Amino acid sequence: MQEKCGVVGIQLSEGDAALPTYYALYALQHRGQEGAGIVTHDGFQQHSKKGLGLVSEVFDEDDVGHLHGLASVGHLRYPTAGEINENSCHPYTVTSKRGSLALAHNGTLVNTDEVRADFEERGHTFSTDSDTEVMVHELASNLVEHGLLEAIDKTMRRIRGAYSLTLMHDDRVVGVRDPLGIRPLCIGKIEDGYIIASESVAVDVLGGELVRDVRPGEVVMLDDDGEGFESYQLFDERPAHCFFEYVYFARPDSTIDERLVYDARREMGRLLYENHGVDTDIVSPVPDSGRAFASGYAEAGGLEYSEALMKNRYVGRTFIMPTQEARETAVRLKLNTMDSNIEGKSVTLVDDSIVRGTTSSQLVKLLRDSGASEVHFRVGSPPIVAPCYLGIDMASRDELMASDKSVEEIRDEIGADSLEYLTPDDIADSLDMPRSEMCTGCVTGSYPVEIEGESCERAETERGEKAGAD
Amino acid sequence: MQEKCGVVGIQLSEGDAALPTYYALYALQHRGQEGAGIVTHDGFQQHSKKGLGLVSEVFDEDDVGHLHGLASVGHLRYPTAGEINENSCHPYTVTSKRGSLALAHNGTLVNTDEVRADFEERGHTFSTDSDTEVMVHELASNLVEHGLLEAIDKTMRRIRGAYSLTLMHDDRVVGVRDPLGIRPLCIGKIEDGYIIASESVAVDVLGGELVRDVRPGEVVMLDDDGEGFESYQLFDERPAHCFFEYVYFARPDSTIDERLVYDARREMGRLLYENHGVDTDIVSPVPDSGRAFASGYAEAGGLEYSEALMKNRYVGRTFIMPTQEARETAVRLKLNTMDSNIEGKSVTLVDDSIVRGTTSSQLVKLLRDSGASEVHFRVGSPPIVAPCYLGIDMASRDELMASDKSVEEIRDEIGADSLEYLTPDDIADSLDMPRSEMCTGCVTGSYPVEIEGESCERAETERGEKAGAD
Amino acid sequence: MQEKCGVVGIQLSEGDAALPTYYALYALQHRGQEGAGIVTHDGFQQHSKKGLGLVSEVFDEDDVGHLHGLASVGHLRYPTAGEINENSCHPYTVTSKRGSLALAHNGTLVNTDEVRADFEERGHTFSTDSDTEVMVHELASNLVEHGLLEAIDKTMRRIRGAYSLTLMHDDRVVGVRDPLGIRPLCIGKIEDGYIIASESVAVDVLGGELVRDVRPGEVVMLDDDGEGFESYQLFDERPAHCFFEYVYFARPDSTIDERLVYDARREMGRLLYENHGVDTDIVSPVPDSGRAFASGYAEAGGLEYSEALMKNRYVGRTFIMPTQEARETAVRLKLNTMDSNIEGKSVTLVDDSIVRGTTSSQLVKLLRDSGASEVHFRVGSPPIVAPCYLGIDMASRDELMASDKSVEEIRDEIGADSLEYLTPDDIADSLDMPRSEMCTGCVTGSYPVEIEGESCERAETERGEKAGAD
Amino acid sequence: MQEKCGVVGIQLSEGDAALPTYYALYALQHRGQEGAGIVTHDGFQQHSKKGLGLVSEVFDEDDVGHLHGLASVGHLRYPTAGEINENSCHPYTVTSKRGSLALAHNGTLVNTDEVRADFEERGHTFSTDSDTEVMVHELASNLVEHGLLEAIDKTMRRIRGAYSLTLMHDDRVVGVRDPLGIRPLCIGKIEDGYIIASESVAVDVLGGELVRDVRPGEVVMLDDDGEGFESYQLFDERPAHCFFEYVYFARPDSTIDERLVYDARREMGRLLYENHGVDTDIVSPVPDSGRAFASGYAEAGGLEYSEALMKNRYVGRTFIMPTQEARETAVRLKLNTMDSNIEGKSVTLVDDSIVRGTTSSQLVKLLRDSGASEVHFRVGSPPIVAPCYLGIDMASRDELMASDKSVEEIRDEIGADSLEYLTPDDIADSLDMPRSEMCTGCVTGSYPVEIEGESCERAETERGEKAGAD
Repeated sequence: MQEKCGVVGIQLSEGDAALPTYYALYALQHRGQEGAGIVTHDGFQQHSKKGLGLVSEVFDEDDVGHLHGLASVGHLRYPTAGEINENSCHPYTVTSKRGSLALAHNGTLVNTDEVRADFEERGHTFSTDSDTEVMVHELASNLVEHGLLEAIDKTMRRIRGAYSLTLMHDDRVVGVRDPLGIRPLCIGKIEDGYIIASESVAVDVLGGELVRDVRPGEVVMLDDDGEGFESYQLFDERPAHCFFEYVYFARPDSTIDERLVYDARREMGRLLYENHGVDTDIVSPVPDSGRAFASGYAEAGGLEYSEALMKNRYVGRTFIMPTQEARETAVRLKLNTMDSNIEGKSVTLVDDSIVRGTTSSQLVKLLRDSGASEVHFRVGSPPIVAPCYLGIDMASRDELMASDKSVEEIRDEIGADSLEYLTPDDIADSLDMPRSEMCTGCVTGSYPVEIEGESCERAETERGEKAGAD
Repeated sequence: MQEKCGVVGIQLSEGDAALPTYYALYALQHRGQEGAGIVTHDGFQQHSKKGLGLVSEVFDEDDVGHLHGLASVGHLRYPTAGEINENSCHPYTVTSKRGSLALAHNGTLVNTDEVRADFEERGHTFSTDSDTEVMVHELASNLVEHGLLEAIDKTMRRIRGAYSLTLMHDDRVVGVRDPLGIRPLCIGKIEDGYIIASESVAVDVLGGELVRDVRPGEVVMLDDDGEGFESYQLFDERPAHCFFEYVYFARPDSTIDERLVYDARREMGRLLYENHGVDTDIVSPVPDSGRAFASGYAEAGGLEYSEALMKNRYVGRTFIMPTQEARETAVRLKLNTMDSNIEGKSVTLVDDSIVRGTTSSQLVKLLRDSGASEVHFRVGSPPIVAPCYLGIDMASRDELMASDKSVEEIRDEIGADSLEYLTPDDIADSLDMPRSEMCTGCVTGSYPVEIEGESCERAETERGEKAGAD
Repeated sequence: MQEKCGVVGIQLSEGDAALPTYYALYALQHRGQEGAGIVTHDGFQQHSKKGLGLVSEVFDEDDVGHLHGLASVGHLRYPTAGEINENSCHPYTVTSKRGSLALAHNGTLVNTDEVRADFEERGHTFSTDSDTEVMVHELASNLVEHGLLEAIDKTMRRIRGAYSLTLMHDDRVVGVRDPLGIRPLCIGKIEDGYIIASESVAVDVLGGELVRDVRPGEVVMLDDDGEGFESYQLFDERPAHCFFEYVYFARPDSTIDERLVYDARREMGRLLYENHGVDTDIVSPVPDSGRAFASGYAEAGGLEYSEALMKNRYVGRTFIMPTQEARETAVRLKLNTMDSNIEGKSVTLVDDSIVRGTTSSQLVKLLRDSGASEVHFRVGSPPIVAPCYLGIDMASRDELMASDKSVEEIRDEIGADSLEYLTPDDIADSLDMPRSEMCTGCVTGSYPVEIEGESCERAETERGEKAGAD
Repeated sequence: MQEKCGVVGIQLSEGDAALPTYYALYALQHRGQEGAGIVTHDGFQQHSKKGLGLVSEVFDEDDVGHLHGLASVGHLRYPTAGEINENSCHPYTVTSKRGSLALAHNGTLVNTDEVRADFEERGHTFSTDSDTEVMVHELASNLVEHGLLEAIDKTMRRIRGAYSLTLMHDDRVVGVRDPLGIRPLCIGKIEDGYIIASESVAVDVLGGELVRDVRPGEVVMLDDDGEGFESYQLFDERPAHCFFEYVYFARPDSTIDERLVYDARREMGRLLYENHGVDTDIVSPVPDSGRAFASGYAEAGGLEYSEALMKNRYVGRTFIMPTQEARETAVRLKLNTMDSNIEGKSVTLVDDSIVRGTTSSQLVKLLRDSGASEVHFRVGSPPIVAPCYLGIDMASRDELMASDKSVEEIRDEIGADSLEYLTPDDIADSLDMPRSEMCTGCVTGSYPVEIEGESCERAETERGEKAGAD
C-alpha cells in the first residue's frame, strides 16, 4: 500500500501539455517529495518520464521537451517506508484492448486485497503491491465491455476508499473524485486549455482561474479541444472531507472546497484563544507549521507575537548523526531558540497538531533550557487517536501519542504548564462545514468507509447514488 | 520487441544464491551490456535488484548482500534502440494466484502479438511492449488451473520463437529451452548446488563442472535441496541451433552443445584457407573478433600471422564527435595501423562476418593508406542476407550489405583485391553438425519457425512431440 | 575575487573536531551554499574534504570519519558568478617552511592586486585569482622569519579589507577579525573545547555557550589542550561593523556584537512604522526576509498582520524555464497570492531591503492583480546606492536601483502607492550602535577603507594601533 | 610523488586545439586512466577542464566546446595509491609575473625535496606534494629574470629525473625531453598545425605524420602560426631510454625512437625461442600483454600458437569480492581456460614480464588444474629486481618477486616446469639499441641518475652539455 499524494491532468488546444504539468507539479511539491512523473499523449502514443526525487531533480529541459502532446497527467509521490524504485513512480501506465491508460492517484483504497484476489483467480498477475495497480486492472477490465464513463462508474462501485484521480485514456483526460470527496480535486481554466489538480495553487502557478472543485462522486471529462469539460455526477452521498488537509497537508495559499487554507488556520488559532486563551508574554509558533495558527491566536488575544524558535532553512532530509546521544544535536540542527526573547518570560507555543509527540517534548525542553518561566502549548486540531487509512501517512496506532493517553497525561509527558486542543466541533466551526461532512477518522476512530477492524460511522444503507450524467 | 540475451538460474542447498549469480552474470557480460538484474527468493518472498549498465555498475556489495535466498535467477540485457529505463530490465517479476514468478529470457518470440490480443480481449493490461511479459501472462494463466510443469508445457505449445529461460516459481528454479534449441542453455554442478546458464563460462567462473546442455524442448527443474535436478523432455523436434553463436556471439571459451567455440572458430579459419587460400605476406585478424579465425587460417596456410591493426582498449561506447567529417577520426580512435608491417606488403584480413559492411570498407582503406600492396578479405561465415528474428539484433534487411549485393559487388564496394566467405555447408562441417539441425535464417532467408512475411523451411507436420518426464 | 562567507575553527581536548565543525557549518549554511570544506589536523598531518554544494551534499559519514584530529577549520562558500570548481573551495591549504597552514576567510580584501604583484616580482606563482591565496602567501612569507603572532600582525598591517579568519597553523587554531570588525566573528565554549565561528548559531547548535565576540583587531589563539584561549589585541581602531549583517545576511537567531538579530529587525520594523506608518487593512511581509520587520511594524501600529504572499518551500535554485515570456511563471513558481485576503484591501508590504528592485515590482503587480486597493511598500534599510567591496555580493553600481533614482522615482517604477525607507541614523538607533562605528558604504558610497575609485570616510591618520597581548 | 604518464601539446594556425587534444589523449589513454585534463589558451586567457576518470568520462562535448584557443596542453594521470582528488589532476596551471603557465609532465623527478626546501626558505608555499609543482616554482622563478628558453634551460639544470613535458607559456606551446631521454616524446605534423605527444599513436589518431622524436635534452618550441617549430638542443648526454616502454607500457602500434613497439615485442619473443626454446604442444600468450611475444616465439619455433587462456573483456577495475577464499574466483572472473586445448598437453606460456609474481602462479595453477601435462613459462624481459624511480609505478623492492629470489626459486614458486627470461643484452639486441643507452635500473639496480640510497651507473663527469640553439 503506497501513499500517492498529488495529481494533475491537463488538456490543451495547442502546444504541449508537459511544461504546464511540470509547473503544476512544482506548485504541488509539498504533497509528495519522493518521486514524480508525467505521462503525455500526442494522439498516437504515450510519452513518459518518471523518477525518484523532487520535481526539479526528476525532470530536465530535455525530458520535458520530449514529452509531446496536448494531453497530460502528472503525479507526485509521498515518502513512505519500504523499498522504493523507479517502478513505484506514477502515473501508472498500461496498454489494453481499448488503448493506453495512464492513472495518477491521490488517496488510499481499502478493499483492493479482495479485488486483487478475484483478478488473480482469473489468471491476472501483478507487478507491484500498489492499490493503484488493482484499480487499473478493474478499469481496464470494465473497458473491454463498456465505454469509458460506464467503465469508470463500474470501477467506482467496485473500489472503496479515498481517491482523487487524473486519468488519461489514450489522449482523453479525466478527473475523478471519490463519492465522499475525501481528498481535494479542483478544475481550473488556463491558457489554451483546462487543468484538473489536487489543489488550486496548481492553477495559480499557471496564471489560470480556479473554476470550481470537482464534486464528490463527480467525473469530469476534459474536452479534447481544450475548450471546456463535461461533468457526470455519478454519486450523491454525504461527503466526508479530510479536515487534516486544512490543518496540515495543503498549502496555505490553496482554496479547497471554497475555503482558503491560510484563513482556516488563522480562524482555528482564533478559536483556540477564545476557548483556551492564557495570558502570556509572547505567543510563538512552532515553525513553520504553527505560524498561521499562532498569528490568529495572538491577534485574538491581543498578545505579542514573537518567534521564540528559529528554523534552519537548510536542514535537508538527512544529515550525519553517528552517535546515540546526538539526538539533542538533531533538534538543535533544525531549531534554535531566541534566548533573549525567552529568558524569564511566559511563552505560549502554538502548533497545528501533535502526532507522535516527540518533537513537542523537545521544543518545550528547549524553551525551558533557554529560561522560559512558563510554557503553554496550544494545538490547532483535536488529539490524533487513530491512524488514517485514507491517504495520509500519519503513524500506526501505537505510535500516536494520544491513542492511549489523556490530555493531562500528554501535558505531563511533554512537560508543558498547560496544553489545550481544539475539538472536532471547533474544527467544523472554523471551516464552516457541517461536522457530519468531515472525515474525522483520525480523531474519533470512526471512519466514513468500512475498514476491516475499524468502526464505520455510516450505515450501509446511507450509500445512495444517482445515475447518469448531469 | 526487446533483445534479451543472457540468463542464469541457481539453486543452492545452503548460503545465498545471489553472489554466484552475480559472478555468473559477470562471466556472461558479453551477451548483454545494457542492463542486468537478479531476483532471489528466500522461501518467503522475492528480493530483486535491476538496473541499467554493466553488472559491475548495477550491483554493489550492499545490493548483493540484501538479495537473500537459496534460489535465484539473473538476466543480462543487450543494447537495443528505443526508449530504455529500469522498467525494461529483467528478470520480469509478478505475483499471481499461485505465488510469485520471476522470468529471465534469452531469445525472441514471434507470435506474441496474437497471444497478447487474446489476453487484452479478456481485460488484461500490459505495462511494456516486451514479448516476455506476454509469456508471463500465458504462464500465470495456465498456473491457475495447472501445476507448474503442465503450465510450462501449455505455454511452450502456445508461444512460438526462440527462448532459453530460467524461471523461478516461488523458490523453485527451472530451466527451459525451446523445442528447436535455438539459443544455448546448459546445466552445471557448482559448490552446494546447481546452475542453469546461457553458456558454460558461467559454470567455469564458479569453479563448477559442466553437466551437459539443456536439450531442445527440455524442462529442467532444480531440486530445492540443491542436490540435483529433474528433466522433462516435452518436445522431440529436429533442432535448429543458431550457428551465429559460434561465429560471433558466444565467448570463445564456452562449450556449446559440446563444441568449444574457440576451436570451432579456428576450424572455420582453417576451412577458409583450404577453400579460399591466397598467398600473402601477412595474415591479420580484424581485432578482436577475427583473431581465432585468422590464427586458424595462417596456420593452415603456413603463413605469417601478424597484427596489422591495433585496437584502442579504452574506446568506450561514446566519445565526442562534433563534425561530419570526423568519421575518419572515429575509425582511427578505435583502430590504428602498424605501418611498418603493412607498407609494400600483401595483407589478408580475416574477420568473423560482414553485417553492414561499413567497418570492412574503412579497414581496407586504412590498410591501403598505410601502403599495403594487396588487401584480401576472408570471412568466417556466409553472407548475411536476412534479419534474425530469433534473438540476435543484427540489422534490418536493407541495412544488410549482402541482402541485395553479390559477393563480387561487395568486394568492389569494400575495395578488397579478393573476398571470400564460407558456405553454410562449410559452417556445418566446421561444427560437425548436420546442416539440417542449424538455424540458417540469416544466411538463407528461410527460418525454422513461421514468421509473418518470411519463408519457413519446415513443414507444419514436422512438429512432433513427446509427453511426460524421462 | 571570490565571496567567502562562513568560517569555523574548533580545538578540542579529546575526540575529533570534524563532526562539531560539520554541525557548525550546517548551522551557518545561510552564509554560503556553493561549497564547503573542512580541514583537520591530527598532530601529524592535515586531513581535508572540500566540495561544491550544500554541507549535506559535500560530506558523508565516511568523510567526516576520516577527518581525524583535535583541531579543525571549516568554510562555506557563497554562490558567485564565474567558473567554480573544487579548487575554489576552501579552507585554503598549503605547506610551508614552518609547517602546514589552513585558512578559512569571510570577507573581501581590497589591496591584494598590489601585494600579489610584489610576490610575482619575487617569482611566486598563483593558482587562483582568490584574494585569500595572496593573504596565505603573505602569512607564509612572514612565518619564515617570525613567530605565528608576529607573522599574523605583519599580515594584518599589509593586507587591507574585510576579513574574519579562522586559521590553523599545524594543529594550532586561531581566530582573526580585521581592525574594523567589518564581518562578525565570535568565540564559544563547547563540550571539551572552544569554537570560533562567524555567528553564534554555530555555538548554539553544539549546545555551547557564547563567550563573546572576537573584537575588531583581535587575534584569538585557542589553547591546544582545548581549555581556553589567549587574546592579542593588535589594533585599536574605530570599528566599522557591517549593518547589512543585521538587516539581511545573518540568521535571525544569531547574536552579533551583543545584539539579537531578530530583535534588531523587529525594532527596525517598529521604527519604520513610527517614522512612516500608514493606515492599512493588512500588513504583510515579503516572505521570508521581511517577516520580522513586518511583525514589528504591525505591532507598533496595532495593525492586522496577515501574509498576503506565500512562498513555495520547494523552489530550488533552478527550474526549467524555456521561453522568454515565462518570467511571470518564474515569479508564480516562487510566490503565490492569498487572493481572498487581498481583494479590495489596502496592503502594506514590508521587506528588509531593495537591491535591484525587480522582485519588488513583481510583488506589487501580483498584489494589484489580486485586487489590492492600495499597495504601500516599507523597507527596513536605507536605499542601496553603492556596491559592497567588503564581503557581500550585492550587485554592481548600475544594477542597484537606488544608485541613480530618487525614492519617488523608485516608488513610481515599482508601482507602489507609497514607499518609505529607514535612514542610516534609524539603523544606528535600532542597533543602539554609534553611526560612526557602522560601515555604511553601500548606502552612502563612502567606505571605511580606501578603495580605488571610491571615497573613503576616514582620514589616514585615524588608523591607530595598540601593540601586544592583553 | 605522483605518477604522471601521458602528455600532449598542440598549436594550430586556425580552429580550436581542444578537440584534437581530446582525441590525442584518447589515443594515449593506456598511459593513465585515473584522471585527465586539458588547458587551452585563446591569446587572452587560459581555459581548463580537469577531472578524475577516463578521457571519455572527464570531458563532454560542452567542456571541449568551451576550451577555446589555438594552443593547448593535455595530460593523463596514472592510477596510484593515496588520496586523489580533482586538485591532483594536471596540467598544472599558475599565473606569474610573466603570464600564465600550464605544465603537463610525464616522468618522476628525484631531487625535488631539496629544491622545494630552498623555495620554502624563501617563503614559498606548496599546495600539493607533487614534484611537478616544484618544477613550476623553479620555472616561474627563472622567468622573472630570464626569457622562456633560458628559464627552461636553468630549470633543466636544477631539476633531476625523468621528464617529458608539454608546457604552455601564455599561448606558446613547448615540448621538453630530459637530457637522458628516459620517457618518450615525439613531434607530429597535423592538419593546420603541430603536435607534441608522448607516443606516435597520438599523431596517428589525428591523421597526422610523425615528424621525429624529440631528442634527449632538446626543447621544441612550436611556432605560434602553427607552421613549424624551433629546436634547441640544450644538452648532449648519453641517453638512457626506458626499455620497459617497449616491453609493456607503450601501445604496440606506437613508434618510439624509431622502433615499432609491436615489432620489438615480436623480436623479443623470437629471441626468447632462440635462446630458451622448448618443444611444446601449444604456445599460448598471457592475454593480452604476452600476445606479440608469444606470436614471435611460436613463429620462431614453428610451434602451434593457440590461446589457452581467455580474458573476460568486461572485467573492470572493481567487482564485489566479499570473502577471503574468493581469490580464486577473482582469477576466474578475469581469465578462463580453454580446457579441451590444454588437457594432456604441454603448454608454453609467454608473458612480457613478471613483477610481483602472484598472477603467474595463479595462471600456472589454472593450466595444471585444466590438465596440462607440462607448463613452461617464458618471459620477454629480464627479472625485475629493483624499483623504478623514473616514472613507472612498478612496486616497492620487497614486493618484487625477483628482488631476493633466483630464477630457479621463482620457477619453483610459480610451479612451472621451466622458466626463462631475456637478459638486458637480449633486450638491447631486440631493440638494436646500445645497452649503454638504455636505462636498466629496474633490472640491474643501477640507475642513470643519482638517487638517494641507490647506486648510479654514471660518473658525475660524464654529464656534458651543449649550449645554445641549433
